[in-house]
Amino acid sequence: MEPIQTIRGFRDFFPEECALRNYIFDTWRAVARRYGFMEYEGPILESTDLFRKKSGDEITSQLFCFIDKGERDVSLRPEVTPSLARMATARQRDFKKPIKWFQIGSCFRYEAPQEGRTREFIQFNADILGDASPATDAELIAMAIDTMREFGVNAEDFAIRLSNREIWNAFLTEANIAAEHTTTFLQIIDKIERARAEDTEKKLSGIGLTLEQVRTFMAAADENHPAFAALRENLTARGLWQHIKIDATIVRGLAYYTGTVFEVFDLKHGLRAVAGGGRYDKLCAVMSDGKVDMPAAGFAMGDVVLGILLKKTPGAQMKLTSALLAASSIDAFVVVADEAQRGHALAAVQALRAAGVRIDYSFGAQKVNKQFQAAEDRKARFAITFGAEYPEVVVKNLIARTQVAVPAASLVEEVRKLLQEPPTGPLLA
Amino acid sequence: MEPIQTIRGFRDFFPEECALRNYIFDTWRAVARRYGFMEYEGPILESTDLFRKKSGDEITSQLFCFIDKGERDVSLRPEVTPSLARMATARQRDFKKPIKWFQIGSCFRYEAPQEGRTREFIQFNADILGDASPATDAELIAMAIDTMREFGVNAEDFAIRLSNREIWNAFLTEANIAAEHTTTFLQIIDKIERARAEDTEKKLSGIGLTLEQVRTFMAAADENHPAFAALRENLTARGLWQHIKIDATIVRGLAYYTGTVFEVFDLKHGLRAVAGGGRYDKLCAVMSDGKVDMPAAGFAMGDVVLGILLKKTPGAQMKLTSALLAASSIDAFVVVADEAQRGHALAAVQALRAAGVRIDYSFGAQKVNKQFQAAEDRKARFAITFGAEYPEVVVKNLIARTQVAVPAASLVEEVRKLLQEPPTGPLLA
Repeated sequence: MEPIQTIRGFRDFFPEECALRNYIFDTWRAVARRYGFMEYEGPILESTDLFRKKSGDEITSQLFCFIDKGERDVSLRPEVTPSLARMATARQRDFKKPIKWFQIGSCFRYEAPQEGRTREFIQFNADILGDASPATDAELIAMAIDTMREFGVNAEDFAIRLSNREIWNAFLTEANIAAEHTTTFLQIIDKIERARAEDTEKKLSGIGLTLEQVRTFMAAADENHPAFAALRENLTARGLWQHIKIDATIVRGLAYYTGTVFEVFDLKHGLRAVAGGGRYDKLCAVMSDGKVDMPAAGFAMGDVVLGILLKKTPGAQMKLTSALLAASSIDAFVVVADEAQRGHALAAVQALRAAGVRIDYSFGAQKVNKQFQAAEDRKARFAITFGAEYPEVVVKNLIARTQVAVPAASLVEEVRKLLQEPPTGPLLA
Repeated sequence: MEPIQTIRGFRDFFPEECALRNYIFDTWRAVARRYGFMEYEGPILESTDLFRKKSGDEITSQLFCFIDKGERDVSLRPEVTPSLARMATARQRDFKKPIKWFQIGSCFRYEAPQEGRTREFIQFNADILGDASPATDAELIAMAIDTMREFGVNAEDFAIRLSNREIWNAFLTEANIAAEHTTTFLQIIDKIERARAEDTEKKLSGIGLTLEQVRTFMAAADENHPAFAALRENLTARGLWQHIKIDATIVRGLAYYTGTVFEVFDLKHGLRAVAGGGRYDKLCAVMSDGKVDMPAAGFAMGDVVLGILLKKTPGAQMKLTSALLAASSIDAFVVVADEAQRGHALAAVQALRAAGVRIDYSFGAQKVNKQFQAAEDRKARFAITFGAEYPEVVVKNLIARTQVAVPAASLVEEVRKLLQEPPTGPLLA
């Protein structure tokens, strides 16, 4: 029989991949907390209607949706924003505005897997609800930038592509284009960089525009455009405007965004966008059937493209390597050189762990050199040997290759002291 | 229209519930790492066959199972052990034995929700593969005990109910009961405490046994029984045997366990089991069609009953409260008393956050007393005021009600120093 396989587009996180995932989570969480965001989480399974309400019926083609045993039409969430809108509007009176919330969790989309795209992926969502000012947009963009920098991905490695839906609305009004053409027009703009000029020209003429008109407008939509003035002033004060590239072709989710839109993208590897977001002032009203009209903006960053980028970016590799080493190593391995001392060794294991020291040891009798090999395999900093000399115990630094004999009674204290010294040697080379 | 609701048995984690969840996760993770376990994770969706292979066809009545768009029969995982067995047997040559792995993530069961039981719940799974010795069982039981103690749940609040499948096998052999009756017999034992004596007597007589026989045997199966000798010696050396109660009625999953079985249960509130586990030496062979025969033992602890217990247990409440406060508070709130200084204030916000300080501030112009109110609402330890005195900045301790003026240039250094002092005052009262 063939062994049962992981489902296509889903991932097993063996310890090394899980350590990478945790490093990404810890970094997301640390930056979000510095920005004063509070963490929330919604259910992984929601009514399919929740996603239809935001995105229309077409969304179901991308959903893992099914009828549950109670005849409910349910779906694995493809994104978290509908749950956020459901939760925040249901209890909006309980929270002071602006609501600054973040979330980290799995999402699911039935799409063709490819580099940077899996069917189960993890998103970091950060949103601010209840404040319509550009200062909110600036706070979110600053947080996206600082998240990248916290990973060691710097100005030479990534940038923010920034635009604003309103500049195109103004353009269309100016050009006397009927509102019914807005969606078609934005679809053309969304593809303008990848499409052939002749095709774009033809499509634009269908709604009464020329490529020349559009190009002239786009060239003028630079960082001096009034739509970006408040953002520019704010991000300049923070020293972050250097990361911004105005790019009017950034459109993103068509029916959804209402103002600022932006993407985080890498500058060197041509990967899919690392993150994207913007202002979506109408969603809360839509999701609450008009009961709660609350402005909102946010962004989402996935773990898949980010993980690829971290491995490719020299500035990010050292942080990543040291996080992976921390996750795969232990502080000390207890060696039982004389089985008569196993009881004392177990008592020490217990006392050291109670003091927060990460300890492993061999469960059964083993030759001493095998136990030292196991200590190396487990990337232990120290080996602590319980032999015939008990109550004297030998603590060996496996990196520096030095050792010291200590009385068992002061072992915990000694080990804690030794662990506070910075580690040096081959493990960190 | 009715707003769309959370699906029955699923949970929204608003910030307070999410902080409780994170505190539970952090504690699980910290204890597992001290025990030298490495974290892994499997997919939330797996082939339904994976769960059928472990538990038989009946399991599907409890599954969120469906046919996906690619005609795959898939299920939300009801537990993680089948994924662990799939992963560990697929790559067992890549890992030194014993494999000590832990996992934290959502599981799903279509059961009637009740106190302590939801349809989406989070499990902590810890397993050791590749070692059949009682020392492995002892390591897992010790870890379950230390997990409870780390939460502040102590010897007066919980105990481990311990048994071993082999003692019943020996009993049945001794009594000449045919092997085909083992499952029926274990079902009777599993219910013996809740069932009426007459009913139990009747069922036992059906397979040729008397209640008297069973009761005599159970009374003799105490901590001096040889099946517990190695565990007792090991856990006594660690100072943990005090937490153990031998209880031969503990049976757990019928077809699954092969030796030691145990449960963590509370002593005061009669809640459902907090955790359960044991030895399951045949699962790897079953899941790999006999290709990898690897002994294994482990336990799982859920977040739902544990969360209820933490709230009810005085020894656990202080740790919980301080974790919730840490999650809901920030270090400092930046007050802009003079809008002309907003640029300087934003630069300071950026510099403080880059130094790891958790900062919030008002996005737009607001009266100073409103901003101080917001600082209190956000549970900030300090308010940092940028006013007309700039470059002098005022740092106010909102707990001690003291304040100090510092030059903007040394603000980051001053705030870091102040944050190292232990907080005192009403917030922690």
